[in-house]
Amino acid sequence: MIDDDSLQEKCGVFGIYSNDPSADVASQAYLALYALQHRGQESCGIAVCNEGLIKYHSDLGLVPDVFSKETLEKLGKGNMAAGHVRYSTNGSNSRSNAQPLVVRHIKGAMAIAHNGSLTNAAVLRERLEQEGAVFHTSNDTEIIIHVITKKRIKTDSIEAAIEQAMYEIEGAYSLVIMSPSKLIAVRDPHGFRPLCMGRINGETVFASESCALDSIGAEFIRDIDPGEIVIIDKDGTRSIKTHCGANDGLCVFEFIYFARPDSVIAGASVHTARQRAGSFLALEHPVQADVVIGVPDSGLDAALGFARQSGIPYGVGFVKNRYIGRTFIQPSQEERDRAVRIKLNTIEATVKNKRVVLIDDSIVRGTTMKRIVKLLRDTGAKEIHLRISSPPFVNLCYFGTDISSRENLIACHMNKDEIRSYLGADSLGYLSLDNVTKLADNAKCGFCDGCFSGKYPVPEPAIAPKSKFDNKINKTE
Amino acid sequence: MIDDDSLQEKCGVFGIYSNDPSADVASQAYLALYALQHRGQESCGIAVCNEGLIKYHSDLGLVPDVFSKETLEKLGKGNMAAGHVRYSTNGSNSRSNAQPLVVRHIKGAMAIAHNGSLTNAAVLRERLEQEGAVFHTSNDTEIIIHVITKKRIKTDSIEAAIEQAMYEIEGAYSLVIMSPSKLIAVRDPHGFRPLCMGRINGETVFASESCALDSIGAEFIRDIDPGEIVIIDKDGTRSIKTHCGANDGLCVFEFIYFARPDSVIAGASVHTARQRAGSFLALEHPVQADVVIGVPDSGLDAALGFARQSGIPYGVGFVKNRYIGRTFIQPSQEERDRAVRIKLNTIEATVKNKRVVLIDDSIVRGTTMKRIVKLLRDTGAKEIHLRISSPPFVNLCYFGTDISSRENLIACHMNKDEIRSYLGADSLGYLSLDNVTKLADNAKCGFCDGCFSGKYPVPEPAIAPKSKFDNKINKTE
Amino acid sequence: MIDDDSLQEKCGVFGIYSNDPSADVASQAYLALYALQHRGQESCGIAVCNEGLIKYHSDLGLVPDVFSKETLEKLGKGNMAAGHVRYSTNGSNSRSNAQPLVVRHIKGAMAIAHNGSLTNAAVLRERLEQEGAVFHTSNDTEIIIHVITKKRIKTDSIEAAIEQAMYEIEGAYSLVIMSPSKLIAVRDPHGFRPLCMGRINGETVFASESCALDSIGAEFIRDIDPGEIVIIDKDGTRSIKTHCGANDGLCVFEFIYFARPDSVIAGASVHTARQRAGSFLALEHPVQADVVIGVPDSGLDAALGFARQSGIPYGVGFVKNRYIGRTFIQPSQEERDRAVRIKLNTIEATVKNKRVVLIDDSIVRGTTMKRIVKLLRDTGAKEIHLRISSPPFVNLCYFGTDISSRENLIACHMNKDEIRSYLGADSLGYLSLDNVTKLADNAKCGFCDGCFSGKYPVPEPAIAPKSKFDNKINKTE
Amino acid sequence: MIDDDSLQEKCGVFGIYSNDPSADVASQAYLALYALQHRGQESCGIAVCNEGLIKYHSDLGLVPDVFSKETLEKLGKGNMAAGHVRYSTNGSNSRSNAQPLVVRHIKGAMAIAHNGSLTNAAVLRERLEQEGAVFHTSNDTEIIIHVITKKRIKTDSIEAAIEQAMYEIEGAYSLVIMSPSKLIAVRDPHGFRPLCMGRINGETVFASESCALDSIGAEFIRDIDPGEIVIIDKDGTRSIKTHCGANDGLCVFEFIYFARPDSVIAGASVHTARQRAGSFLALEHPVQADVVIGVPDSGLDAALGFARQSGIPYGVGFVKNRYIGRTFIQPSQEERDRAVRIKLNTIEATVKNKRVVLIDDSIVRGTTMKRIVKLLRDTGAKEIHLRISSPPFVNLCYFGTDISSRENLIACHMNKDEIRSYLGADSLGYLSLDNVTKLADNAKCGFCDGCFSGKYPVPEPAIAPKSKFDNKINKTE
Repeated sequence: MIDDDSLQEKCGVFGIYSNDPSADVASQAYLALYALQHRGQESCGIAVCNEGLIKYHSDLGLVPDVFSKETLEKLGKGNMAAGHVRYSTNGSNSRSNAQPLVVRHIKGAMAIAHNGSLTNAAVLRERLEQEGAVFHTSNDTEIIIHVITKKRIKTDSIEAAIEQAMYEIEGAYSLVIMSPSKLIAVRDPHGFRPLCMGRINGETVFASESCALDSIGAEFIRDIDPGEIVIIDKDGTRSIKTHCGANDGLCVFEFIYFARPDSVIAGASVHTARQRAGSFLALEHPVQADVVIGVPDSGLDAALGFARQSGIPYGVGFVKNRYIGRTFIQPSQEERDRAVRIKLNTIEATVKNKRVVLIDDSIVRGTTMKRIVKLLRDTGAKEIHLRISSPPFVNLCYFGTDISSRENLIACHMNKDEIRSYLGADSLGYLSLDNVTKLADNAKCGFCDGCFSGKYPVPEPAIAPKSKFDNKINKTE
Repeated sequence: MIDDDSLQEKCGVFGIYSNDPSADVASQAYLALYALQHRGQESCGIAVCNEGLIKYHSDLGLVPDVFSKETLEKLGKGNMAAGHVRYSTNGSNSRSNAQPLVVRHIKGAMAIAHNGSLTNAAVLRERLEQEGAVFHTSNDTEIIIHVITKKRIKTDSIEAAIEQAMYEIEGAYSLVIMSPSKLIAVRDPHGFRPLCMGRINGETVFASESCALDSIGAEFIRDIDPGEIVIIDKDGTRSIKTHCGANDGLCVFEFIYFARPDSVIAGASVHTARQRAGSFLALEHPVQADVVIGVPDSGLDAALGFARQSGIPYGVGFVKNRYIGRTFIQPSQEERDRAVRIKLNTIEATVKNKRVVLIDDSIVRGTTMKRIVKLLRDTGAKEIHLRISSPPFVNLCYFGTDISSRENLIACHMNKDEIRSYLGADSLGYLSLDNVTKLADNAKCGFCDGCFSGKYPVPEPAIAPKSKFDNKINKTE
Repeated sequence: MIDDDSLQEKCGVFGIYSNDPSADVASQAYLALYALQHRGQESCGIAVCNEGLIKYHSDLGLVPDVFSKETLEKLGKGNMAAGHVRYSTNGSNSRSNAQPLVVRHIKGAMAIAHNGSLTNAAVLRERLEQEGAVFHTSNDTEIIIHVITKKRIKTDSIEAAIEQAMYEIEGAYSLVIMSPSKLIAVRDPHGFRPLCMGRINGETVFASESCALDSIGAEFIRDIDPGEIVIIDKDGTRSIKTHCGANDGLCVFEFIYFARPDSVIAGASVHTARQRAGSFLALEHPVQADVVIGVPDSGLDAALGFARQSGIPYGVGFVKNRYIGRTFIQPSQEERDRAVRIKLNTIEATVKNKRVVLIDDSIVRGTTMKRIVKLLRDTGAKEIHLRISSPPFVNLCYFGTDISSRENLIACHMNKDEIRSYLGADSLGYLSLDNVTKLADNAKCGFCDGCFSGKYPVPEPAIAPKSKFDNKINKTE
Repeated sequence: MIDDDSLQEKCGVFGIYSNDPSADVASQAYLALYALQHRGQESCGIAVCNEGLIKYHSDLGLVPDVFSKETLEKLGKGNMAAGHVRYSTNGSNSRSNAQPLVVRHIKGAMAIAHNGSLTNAAVLRERLEQEGAVFHTSNDTEIIIHVITKKRIKTDSIEAAIEQAMYEIEGAYSLVIMSPSKLIAVRDPHGFRPLCMGRINGETVFASESCALDSIGAEFIRDIDPGEIVIIDKDGTRSIKTHCGANDGLCVFEFIYFARPDSVIAGASVHTARQRAGSFLALEHPVQADVVIGVPDSGLDAALGFARQSGIPYGVGFVKNRYIGRTFIQPSQEERDRAVRIKLNTIEATVKNKRVVLIDDSIVRGTTMKRIVKLLRDTGAKEIHLRISSPPFVNLCYFGTDISSRENLIACHMNKDEIRSYLGADSLGYLSLDNVTKLADNAKCGFCDGCFSGKYPVPEPAIAPKSKFDNKINKTE
């Protein structure tokens, strides 16, 4: 109802391998996807493998809407499951694009769940089509399937085929792949997207974030290394590290916004990183004020960090309506400012007659922030000092984040003071580029901050990241 | 609720081409599929082409359940549409098997709707997989797509690719194919399944049966010839007849049970054929009786024919509950005979103290017929003389009818008198094999009556017709 | 989609009493309502009594849509159930009007299911409101509840209260009433609507029609007498006959159209009555023709009677689409004639170049019949001789049939020849008023044929039958 | 999925009166109910009045589930609307209990929405039934309707009838009543439940909490006085204050838990009251610790107050899954402790190796708190000091809060140290009874703290608050 101009990340993936041939892996996948829901709310799916037979179900909608008790029972027991939640940056919003994709090739069935975005998808697809390939979806995960399948013909194992395929596919990919007998986790050489491994009662699990491990009571073991292929089957767990080495591209925005604050990525706490962002902001852009408040939920951690560093009291400035449903009422243009209050209302006692420091994680188009600032003014805030816990967005992302065009980025069209004026704030401060990679200073990896700096760990692709393949097929839902 | 042991035919197909680029082809497809619903109640789908862009929607369920006003509006206007209703003989009961299948290959998008069954599917699939093909469904329509796509690389047009592909695919196929600019109808050389062409206001339509033409007010033009490829595009209609000539395999069961009585196939009225079957039965197996009744709706036409030929009065013996819904109540074993009355009840005034001739089109397992006979006895029928308007089923069908195993065929395990005794009838007469092909004596084609005679127009395949590809992937719905 | 101008009868009722305190009475009610579905398709409901505790569920929709396995399980086991299917003639189309109505008064709970219409509803409601009564629905069943409740305060038993109430309520009512310990069937003194009793394994059941007894395997015992109150409780079955005697008002249209042909009412077979109507028609309005066809399903029985009497062959002229769903497509005005073919298509082989006798049960507005006649013409019928198995409608019904205004009755505005001309038929013959009451000549009662004759068994009420109370409350659904 | 042992409040009410006869009052009611959703998640409803005609819709479910765009359009425009959200303390969980109740009596229709609970409901109902009253629901709102209706017969206006009725009904009631021409707000003399008035563009609105006014952009005018009747019609707004004076019973738990923190009740900010509760706790039960965390969302405000007063840093200890859906998976008993993490997970960086002060608003059964404490231990908290921002629950509530039995109250069965030990905390401190009424020290009213103190503003009823009328009728849904 209110224009949502927050950034969206593409997907979350999950996999589980049990030594018990009839484990309730479907329910565990369900719980884990529920915990990963923040990574994609458009569609979701689970595939279960029972003695080599793969059953699956996927659809548009949130995890608890798509999966009922009856659906999970139909999926049944098994020794492996793969799961996926999706927000579409690439591939249209259609049921057929829901993952895991499940296909059958010369060596049997394969289920695949993918988080990321290929940078050479168009080139690969063109080449595959010239060889007679048929595509059913518009997402680049299907390209990965074709490349692996081609390699599979000439190799002895699925993992050897994946290893070969990795020489051809470029870009960001954290994958969970399920063959009739193996569960395989793969992370691209730069490690753009997170992927970790855990264990519970002898079951091994893979997940995009550690919060999914917590949700099923699994213990965190380690991150999958960038470039690594981890294979689990009845003979145990082994690893192929041919493509390892780079480890220089973890998306810094995972720490700023995407990941859940209770997750630990590359050894660094997401919550701590956000609090640090607030502290840095207080040092970089100090201000005299009466209270520090965060935009819920994205700005709360950084607001706490700003408050602690500055000594200005932390306050609760807003109430967010807990009953998020799809409110369909489209307010008329003139009611729109007012309408923001349905989802977010101010607490007058906190902000009236106060000089307020307002914290959020980022500004994309600025339309929502403009309304929030006005809301605070209407509630009686005397001054509003806006602090953003990331640098301005000025570049596209090719690796799975939904920044596909500079048109919608306010920082590409206005300078800082114009933005401040547009938003109606008394002052505006962004986190510096220098500090952004220090947020997770104990992280065991290098970062991609290309959306801020324009410097990517790989050469910038010639082609725009969005809508590469959508133009010929659309599925209405 | 009551065991349904009637035979199921696989599919119905439909296509429409308009010279108006924004015609309401989706609604016309909807109405036509509604008329073809008897050919498949498991899933259905419609694909619409608008200036080369294909949108589609399909799902499990009946036509009016799958398509709402909103869904049709989302499909939008266009100059072409293809539609499909499906009962799965081959490929499991899953949403991903719903048709039309819509894919993209090297030359653009393609939608395909298929009625029939390939006899060399397993061989073709094996070969395609060895070349790296990836399959998303378990139905053999996807194999046809791959064969055509492979040919398409080296040919100038989609129709040329189809012509080439027809040298490789064997078995039964009536196809409606939609490319971004062409609508194409294809019928296999033996013409196992019907396919006809009609016209309305300058729009050309293809449909499995002429009743679908009637439903949208279209005029019947002609049947597609066995082996023929009919192409419609902006330059008009043309035909490729390379594969024509055989025309010897029209499924005789279309006349006995599958097709709607108001359809005309190969120039012969289905209703008339059924009435003739009744007349033949009266000549072959005469009996002294007071009334002739048919099992609704499948036996009514033949009952009328029997009555006219024999002079015994035609009567209405049963009322069928008009409100067919999915009655979920599973009666206990001992209540099952009684429970038949929920869907079908006797009219006492017609049968009590009467010698009854009871007509139905066929007997598969015999369980339902046994209950119907008992129902008549309980209502007071003095004698029950069962007449079946087809010969006994003793052979499999490889061409799209759901007779996939001899296990379920009562006539494979019992002789005629044992069957009569099992069913509880006083006498039993089947239509003779000689007369079965005389039902539609003015039809302009030869028939396949392999399910009765064991003689097929092509060599009998080595492999059983069912579940060729299901064993590795299942999708729960 | 096609204007439905057939007559609608209001309701069907059902009740069951078991000596087993935890019988599956909900499932039996479900099956019986499924068999009574033709009496009302708008809403339905079931109330179950378990040790004095009444649970119920009702909603808009068909029986298999409103009741799922889960819903029936929630209703649970019990020793009594009451059920209802409804078409609203009186009271708006709203969920709150669905029956059985379940209320609690001074002596405990009460569930009531009603078929019929009161003629003094407005007067009673006015009086009750002046005494402080509060109404939740707009249907007159709630008035019956209030009258009974008022009587209940001063009487010793629910049956005594009902007996007293019957002195005040006037018009048509067949009721099934369930108190915590008793199941009671009531029929108004004139017996406008049918109500019968059956038995199965020691359980006693009441139903509007005997076909509902058949559906659960119950044996028909007898009709409830007009004016009779039958009470069943742990002490057995007893009867109050204070109001008996008149027995002169059974709606003749039950035989012509409303009831299912397999039902037996007042000792007469509905199917036989319809066949007789056809025979009378052949005698009254003979014609030279080649085939007799009926409009499915309402005209089929009479067509058979006409054919037998006249010697003209009976034929199948139409195919009705079996997959009745709510087809939402609204054809444009000019497509409407064509659109009739979606639900009803002609069989060319039966009618082309033939002189056709076309039979239906009645003509209300005439719009549908006009389209059917045109359909036959378009299919090539040479002559069309229309025969209607009832006299012309020229009067209102106050007793539960949906004839609430003369505006919509074609016979009120045109003479017979004008109607023939409007419909496009070559000749038109109605059943005579004399013969209409001879249809069920063995019936043990007198008939109301007021809609044809203008003579009612009671004085004609001053107030129009429809929409008495709707004007103040509406519930959107 | 996790046992929810938080307290539930019964309802929220809303009303709007516009001078525009075709205002979009339904949409405004929708938005306001969305903001009041926290007061009841079981059912909801809206009634709209258009030129004296009342339409309504209500059902089980959340506001965005029950109301679609289509439903609101069917309700249509009007000059008045009344709305309700409900959690059932009294009356079973059934669709027929959803409000507003809409009835018709001698003077026309009436819609009523009620928050509260009568203490003499059983007595009134008994009396009404003896006079012949019929009840359709099991909630006491229907009793209020009957009492008003009886008075209405002898009075000149609906407001006079309400004034008279208030001499008879006892207990808690905040009402919004809509007659064909008037919108009326009523609050019981003790003012147990809140009710306020606002204005927007000449429209007057009533709502349980001021946050509902904010959600539609309305300006807060004032609270309805305890005992006051406010009437709005075309002649403007007027007030009847016959019953005013007591103003001594506002439920203190509105400030502790029920109301939204952005609401202002009786002139006091709910958020500030909760922060004050935390400050009082810090003074009453000081402790040496490293971090103060609150249980989201109920304990966060008090945690901030505790932190500020104590000087111990405020921290974010938990992440709550934002995607609240109905997670149906029932974990096995042994998995239950682990399963709490699906909805609530700890942030290790905040609590590991720390001495933690944990704040929540109340303890009912203690089962959830026990799991939360264990969760903190498992995450590595060194010490856990539990502080509760209210006194122990030891008494029932008769005025609309779901404390209907002492059985479920842990503080009725254990002393403070036993509770601490059961929960697994290192120390436990409750807010004192003295301080609880000081939370909202600027509130313009007296409080009811009977659930803590056992002292109520009215004599304690003899009858238990729950399930007064449920035992005779149940409706399954």
